[in-house]
Amino acid sequence: MSRSDDRPEPTDGLTSGAPFDVAGRDAVYRAIATRRDVRGEFLPDPIDEAALARILDAAHRAPSVGLSQPWDFILIRRLETRQRIADIFADANAQAAERFPAGKRDQYRALKLAGITSAPLNICITSDRERGGPVILGATHMADTDLFSTVCAIQNLWLAARAEGIGVGWVSILHEDRVKAVLGIPQRLRLVGYLCVGHVKGFFDSPELEKRGWKRRSPLASHIHEEGWREED
Amino acid sequence: MSRSDDRPEPTDGLTSGAPFDVAGRDAVYRAIATRRDVRGEFLPDPIDEAALARILDAAHRAPSVGLSQPWDFILIRRLETRQRIADIFADANAQAAERFPAGKRDQYRALKLAGITSAPLNICITSDRERGGPVILGATHMADTDLFSTVCAIQNLWLAARAEGIGVGWVSILHEDRVKAVLGIPQRLRLVGYLCVGHVKGFFDSPELEKRGWKRRSPLASHIHEEGWREED
Repeated sequence: MSRSDDRPEPTDGLTSGAPFDVAGRDAVYRAIATRRDVRGEFLPDPIDEAALARILDAAHRAPSVGLSQPWDFILIRRLETRQRIADIFADANAQAAERFPAGKRDQYRALKLAGITSAPLNICITSDRERGGPVILGATHMADTDLFSTVCAIQNLWLAARAEGIGVGWVSILHEDRVKAVLGIPQRLRLVGYLCVGHVKGFFDSPELEKRGWKRRSPLASHIHEEGWREED
Repeated sequence: MSRSDDRPEPTDGLTSGAPFDVAGRDAVYRAIATRRDVRGEFLPDPIDEAALARILDAAHRAPSVGLSQPWDFILIRRLETRQRIADIFADANAQAAERFPAGKRDQYRALKLAGITSAPLNICITSDRERGGPVILGATHMADTDLFSTVCAIQNLWLAARAEGIGVGWVSILHEDRVKAVLGIPQRLRLVGYLCVGHVKGFFDSPELEKRGWKRRSPLASHIHEEGWREED
């Protein structure tokens, strides 16, 4: 196709496919390696609004199925609202403890698993299951692609926050219906993530659940399969 | 608690909560802003094994519910296997086209939506719904937390690849059962993502679906709600 053709060149708008320089690459890997799920280390310091805008913009730049952008971000700063969510967490967490075998229950109860009221900001992230209409490119054959897009937005937010020196803790021990009622979220939306966000005393140098003796990480090699699934690889 | 106490200091292993320097922060944002869903720009060049190892390690450093690490990575390089997956995509994509209204169908058919055989590497990412046992910390109350962990791993992989100058395209127009049969994936696992991975001629400077006139991105402001849900915010 020649440039005199009216149709767009397929290479129009292509930018370099070169890797980042070593310092840039290392910064990306540092954000990934030092990101932590923060529960107990939040400081009450306010978050700079420009930093918050950058973090939300990073989330909004996530990939989404058929460019549907199904996510929404509900920013919760009022302590009264956060306290109501913390009460829902407390109920769910007490139920959760009962699910563990007796020998593990006390260890579970001793863990701090949410910083809902100690973090100055909470962000509830939802996925609108009807956004984009009845047929969405890429969502015709596999389930939950809208939820997966929304999780990509959360992971972008989490890594951007780490680079800003802002901690994020994802709280999933919640009764979804009660949280939706408190925040007025319509039924058609799924609550995907409830995040506690704030500056921190510091980030742990390894995952807190490993540090506290709850569980150990497995080696990467045990998760890699060549050419097809191999049990006990 | 004094240092002479035998119990661990809660601050043991805490590293700085300071932000990255500006160059480091910008590199993280650059990976997020320039990451693209690659379909038609793959080059056949082999991927450096050290870079691939770094990308997979980045995926494996994702957060996971209760440190369950439910993900697995099946690396597919054999053309014969990729061709079998491409055949499944072709069937699903023909079905998908029929779902769109007549006026949109031809535009859909003209889009290139997968680089399964042109990318030298495919990675199938699964989530083991039984990994970690019957009760997993954080998975007691909300559904699909294991899938969400696995998506976080995919987004880490995608951003790391971008920093390495390696393109990734997520293909979701597939019959999950047929792909699982080709790769021998057990029933208990969910297929979360099927990725085409390779070096590229370049990365588009904006999402390809927008560039090709399929859909436009919405502004971030329309996705932000203060203190609670507001319809038509």
